[in-house]
Amino acid sequence: MSKNKTQLNLLNKTLNIARNSKFYKSKLQGFPLELKNILELQNFPFTTKKELRDCYPFGALAVPINDVVELHTSSGTTGKAALSFLTKEDLKNSSKAIAKAWKCFGITKSSRVQFMMSYGLFSGATLNTYAIQELGGFVVPAGIQSAEKQIQMMLDFKIDTIVGTVGYYFYLFDYIKEKQIPLEQFSLKCGIMAGEIYSDKVRSEIERKFKIKIFDHYGLCEVNTGIAYECEFRTGLHFLDNYVLPEIIDPENGKVLPVDNEGELVLTTLKKNALPLIRYRTGDITSIKSGRCPCGRSSIRINRIKRRVDDIIFIKGIKIDPYELKEYLLEIAGDNIFSDIKIRVGNSFENYSPEILVSLKNPSSTNLLSVIQKTLKEKTLLTFDVKHISRDYFQRGENNKVKFVEYVDKK
Amino acid sequence: MSKNKTQLNLLNKTLNIARNSKFYKSKLQGFPLELKNILELQNFPFTTKKELRDCYPFGALAVPINDVVELHTSSGTTGKAALSFLTKEDLKNSSKAIAKAWKCFGITKSSRVQFMMSYGLFSGATLNTYAIQELGGFVVPAGIQSAEKQIQMMLDFKIDTIVGTVGYYFYLFDYIKEKQIPLEQFSLKCGIMAGEIYSDKVRSEIERKFKIKIFDHYGLCEVNTGIAYECEFRTGLHFLDNYVLPEIIDPENGKVLPVDNEGELVLTTLKKNALPLIRYRTGDITSIKSGRCPCGRSSIRINRIKRRVDDIIFIKGIKIDPYELKEYLLEIAGDNIFSDIKIRVGNSFENYSPEILVSLKNPSSTNLLSVIQKTLKEKTLLTFDVKHISRDYFQRGENNKVKFVEYVDKK
Repeated sequence: MSKNKTQLNLLNKTLNIARNSKFYKSKLQGFPLELKNILELQNFPFTTKKELRDCYPFGALAVPINDVVELHTSSGTTGKAALSFLTKEDLKNSSKAIAKAWKCFGITKSSRVQFMMSYGLFSGATLNTYAIQELGGFVVPAGIQSAEKQIQMMLDFKIDTIVGTVGYYFYLFDYIKEKQIPLEQFSLKCGIMAGEIYSDKVRSEIERKFKIKIFDHYGLCEVNTGIAYECEFRTGLHFLDNYVLPEIIDPENGKVLPVDNEGELVLTTLKKNALPLIRYRTGDITSIKSGRCPCGRSSIRINRIKRRVDDIIFIKGIKIDPYELKEYLLEIAGDNIFSDIKIRVGNSFENYSPEILVSLKNPSSTNLLSVIQKTLKEKTLLTFDVKHISRDYFQRGENNKVKFVEYVDKK
Repeated sequence: MSKNKTQLNLLNKTLNIARNSKFYKSKLQGFPLELKNILELQNFPFTTKKELRDCYPFGALAVPINDVVELHTSSGTTGKAALSFLTKEDLKNSSKAIAKAWKCFGITKSSRVQFMMSYGLFSGATLNTYAIQELGGFVVPAGIQSAEKQIQMMLDFKIDTIVGTVGYYFYLFDYIKEKQIPLEQFSLKCGIMAGEIYSDKVRSEIERKFKIKIFDHYGLCEVNTGIAYECEFRTGLHFLDNYVLPEIIDPENGKVLPVDNEGELVLTTLKKNALPLIRYRTGDITSIKSGRCPCGRSSIRINRIKRRVDDIIFIKGIKIDPYELKEYLLEIAGDNIFSDIKIRVGNSFENYSPEILVSLKNPSSTNLLSVIQKTLKEKTLLTFDVKHISRDYFQRGENNKVKFVEYVDKK
């Protein structure tokens, strides 16, 4: 059966299952029960995060709760986090699907993987662990531990692959350097860096520091974690397109965009029974890549995620892409600041400068702060209040992720 | 096949597998390759925690590391934690075995279980989760979260069963009371309270507070978590005796003790491939119960764990059982202190009184401290320095466990 035909079959099955939920039963009323062509999906309505929140906790559940065996949630702190319910079959399907990604990263029966992200409610660590075990790989579920313990385990168990967020790689490297542990003592070959958006430049820096190859992995809790992954050629991310179907839309008008056009990634699950999602708007900006990957895989590819739809911020009427801003900052400050950075924007902008919080490696060099301020002013026309803040300030949040853009009330 | 015959077969298989490890190959040299009777196990040498530490990390591993897919460790902070390696088959076997315990607690396909212990390296949460899912139950892997979030999830997902440590149940109840959340809003029916030794009195108190039934569950990381569990009659803990074989020995001379005699629990695994253990000394004091349980299960039963071998402390020449001391304390102070208590003993006792740290519910009632001191003096002949300490002091450590007896250097 052709890939398209397989996808169409899975899609029709999913549309059918979705209608078992209260949410989709009402939402999909009047829409065709069966598609003849996968392109007809474009006529279906989007699903938004807000809608899922509004029918929290069980409104989008498409199976009896008795069939559910596992729950994961996004890191939402309000209790209205995004949910991912899984049946036994969902667990099996996700393990098999995601295992494809890990196989692509080079994981085999003899690999030793240390997972440095939190277990429990976070789907990433748990579901990827199942996927690696599907391939027979050995997983050390380190979770959130001290740098000392993480490094001890890497050495003790001769770990060849580590998984963590960008900030954590930098943090670990600083620790290794501070403790003067020779890199030769490690057996590391490869790292998966996920959970945050990062540039090729940042990636190269970490590869240079650790002397390993870094792969990107994209996913989100709502679709049961990682669904797109890089192969050795790193020409975009291969989609698990028999598991989740991607589309790219214009975030303004919702129209589907042709390949190579940048827009918002929209996902339709193909093998989720407990909580299928139809045209779910991710808020992540990317494009579907044309052409074939030299690796020979025929799956749909997307470019690495550049930014989020809602990350574009307007400050005093000026449109700012915070990820571009971060790139500027790292260019200007080079090796003199750590990569965790926070942009603080006031909710009222009248007499208030936006702030940028960075950790200087040499806190006495206040001159750098004014250089950054001056250069950003030239580039953006905005005067940022650039402040040094202790690095400890950034070591918090689930999986050590730092909220990059923060809105604050300031009177 | 009779149970004894099954156990003998599994035991012989285990002895055979164990010899694949460097550690047991040398340790079991000269001992019979095959037992004709299960009682011959008594001639085999014990395995101690120290021995396992000495051959850390791979010395006791009985399969090629390539066959291992998961690692768990005890909460040791030194990097020399007790290890539990698992192959794919081990994972399957442990899920099936431990599922028996959860079935006994009343867990079915329609149960909703919230696990309030840390995931990741700790084997308890992960392996019990697999076991509950084996029965089709729904697991919320809450892990370590704020009380607010734990309670929100219990309410949102209509949780009927919670799992946590003793101290955490008390902590949660205080939170519920403080926030004035009516107990009727919960769907709770049952709680599993594990990871710490606690008395029947403490159990009754929690049952009264939450209006649920509490079950005990015994296990340890080295044998892949929970291996003995209570049934509805709660006349001792049923052993998963086709998974792990218990013996009771005199901790002084190592002789096997008859049923109903209190001594140290010694364990031999019967279905572990990656890291089989032969006659592992647990340090936990209990006895094997004679007679039959009214529930009809024919498995070996042990009494609830009373204390640990190494918990007996000598202070100024006087032998103190800290768990008995805790009972005294709770008797004397009743509802006026929290159940987390710490006994601090100096490493040098010359001019130094042992300390007892408790949190008073009404910190201005210092009179209670002197009453405790006076009564303990009568009971133990020792003068304890009884101090009130902020309750926050106890909220720490993996799974919120508090180190009950602490040795401190004091000059």
